[in-house]
Amino acid sequence: MSFRVLSRDGFARRGRYETPHGTVETPVFMNVATQAAIKGGLSSLDLKAAGCQAALCNTYHLHLRPGEDTVAKLGGLHRFMCWDGPVLTDSGGFQVFSLAQRRKITEEGVSFSSHIDGRRVLLSPEGAVDIQTKLGADIIMALDECVENPAPYEYVKQSAGRTARWLARCKERWTEKPAASTLWGINQGGVYDDLRIDHMRRIAELDLPGYAVGGLAVGEETAVMYHILDILEEHMPPDKPRYLMGVGTPENIIEAAARGLDFFDCVIPARNGRHGHLYTWRGRVNILNERYKEDGAPLDEACGCPLCQNHSRAYLRHLFKAGEVLALRLGVLHNLYFYNSLTARIRSEIEKGTFQTFRKQYAGVLDRKIQL
Amino acid sequence: MSFRVLSRDGFARRGRYETPHGTVETPVFMNVATQAAIKGGLSSLDLKAAGCQAALCNTYHLHLRPGEDTVAKLGGLHRFMCWDGPVLTDSGGFQVFSLAQRRKITEEGVSFSSHIDGRRVLLSPEGAVDIQTKLGADIIMALDECVENPAPYEYVKQSAGRTARWLARCKERWTEKPAASTLWGINQGGVYDDLRIDHMRRIAELDLPGYAVGGLAVGEETAVMYHILDILEEHMPPDKPRYLMGVGTPENIIEAAARGLDFFDCVIPARNGRHGHLYTWRGRVNILNERYKEDGAPLDEACGCPLCQNHSRAYLRHLFKAGEVLALRLGVLHNLYFYNSLTARIRSEIEKGTFQTFRKQYAGVLDRKIQL
Repeated sequence: MSFRVLSRDGFARRGRYETPHGTVETPVFMNVATQAAIKGGLSSLDLKAAGCQAALCNTYHLHLRPGEDTVAKLGGLHRFMCWDGPVLTDSGGFQVFSLAQRRKITEEGVSFSSHIDGRRVLLSPEGAVDIQTKLGADIIMALDECVENPAPYEYVKQSAGRTARWLARCKERWTEKPAASTLWGINQGGVYDDLRIDHMRRIAELDLPGYAVGGLAVGEETAVMYHILDILEEHMPPDKPRYLMGVGTPENIIEAAARGLDFFDCVIPARNGRHGHLYTWRGRVNILNERYKEDGAPLDEACGCPLCQNHSRAYLRHLFKAGEVLALRLGVLHNLYFYNSLTARIRSEIEKGTFQTFRKQYAGVLDRKIQL
Repeated sequence: MSFRVLSRDGFARRGRYETPHGTVETPVFMNVATQAAIKGGLSSLDLKAAGCQAALCNTYHLHLRPGEDTVAKLGGLHRFMCWDGPVLTDSGGFQVFSLAQRRKITEEGVSFSSHIDGRRVLLSPEGAVDIQTKLGADIIMALDECVENPAPYEYVKQSAGRTARWLARCKERWTEKPAASTLWGINQGGVYDDLRIDHMRRIAELDLPGYAVGGLAVGEETAVMYHILDILEEHMPPDKPRYLMGVGTPENIIEAAARGLDFFDCVIPARNGRHGHLYTWRGRVNILNERYKEDGAPLDEACGCPLCQNHSRAYLRHLFKAGEVLALRLGVLHNLYFYNSLTARIRSEIEKGTFQTFRKQYAGVLDRKIQL
């Protein structure tokens, strides 16, 4: 796999990442398929229609159910979920800390009880690599501890140190058994500049094929998140892809791209879609509003997604009010299409050298609530 | 609209029904879109992929939400739900008797409280015609009382008489305001031969464009249902389409087609699909069974549906176990495809004059539970 920065606009980068399952044009939004399926009932055909370039699955969930051995026997994640494009698997660190019960962190790894059946599980750095290698993802993530912000300085320092040591062990395991999967490391350090920079420098030395920033959008103010990205920029390897994990709103993504980030993922578009909160280039619409009851127009005339191409605002509102599952699907499909269009637009603006103008034009616009 | 019987095999008929929204080849299974949407998140594009010829919507539900005036303002049901094929609307009689609260039947009609907000509603025969005309269905159904079996003879007699008088009023209303919609009448009479035949004769005199048999598969034994169809056959107008409402299993449909019925609808395939009970030509499979955990084969090698063409048994089982909405969609899609294939097969067997052999071959097969 290889990454090339094709052009720059300020710190923003227009790049290209080659994987065994095709090329990813960056900045890119990876569509979240936690359990090897997109929430809301989208199939892999819908993902194509949504303009999806890459899917993201979750190690924690897939390890617990159906298990990496099952997925491997069935030909790996791509074949299992019928998606022939690139797949990244999250290490599961975040889910261990948000979903699992009775977790215990030691130098060895993290042990916890499954949220499904209470079964006791140990996830070690080596285990995370092994699981993801079996799953057959194109990009696999190192095991990290994701600490909620703000956390005490001393705890974050200690935790970031452990995450760095875990990363070295991940690399060792990954190097031992050459596979098609490529390993990326994750920066931690909470909201503390020195810890973030120190950690970034330390993990950059491992010369991994890609780097992520984790532990953001977990409790801190947006300005703090942007500040951390600002100070990290010069310390992230310039020739490697940079992935901001689990972020964020459309404006967050523009602002992070402006700070040199290339890869994104987030549950926000799918979650909002399932609640009828739909993105447009003018802002976010609540389609359940009474005003759309007899509104025969598409949500967004200019949108090329299957919802806007076929259905009216009134029909979508009816589906939500009537509790029809199709409402969820169309809502998610539209929002993923919007996010994929947003990153396509960012790419095009960087190419044209007009990204800074674009960024100013949409500041305060895309995240606001509007009525049509 | 016109109906032609193209060929016969015993009492079974291979027919063709022309509607303003296209031709329906019969016997046909109408795919149930109660609230102007197929349960499980299927879109109109999925309906095409399922081989659907005609959709069925429900007057009771659509009157309560979003209301026929709203649907009419939005261009009628076809445009509202983005389905350009034929649509039949059920009169809502069945739902009034199964869903509504505090219902009161008088000669005028039936009044009830909405199951959504308790609002008091009167549904009269004229009202049922008006609502369905506004909805813009190709085929509209007269208001009837659907009595659960078995019910006392005297009650059924009185009720069937009222349903016959309601039908005459429906016809009068429908004749007054010529619309694209065509009105079909519904036979009632419970499990009593004389009442069924008397009612059928009486409503046949109205010379409507189509006739349905209602009030079956509502509590009686299957053998009783077949018996009622047997005795009705000679009393149903031979040149009109015949619709068996709300029935049934694959074997029920074969047996009813063998008794001269042309149109069918039922929630069984979608409901079973949502629970992972999937039809094959060898019987019904419970895909949640542990035995499919690592089974990489498609559910049915010979099936052309999007589930069987793309996904494995193991993946579908995983989706159900993981609670993913995509499981419902793929399950429903497969079962509707099966039902649409089943009626296509019935048509082809009648055309070839081999329907009786086919019927014997699959007796006791399609409704049984099997393991693959």
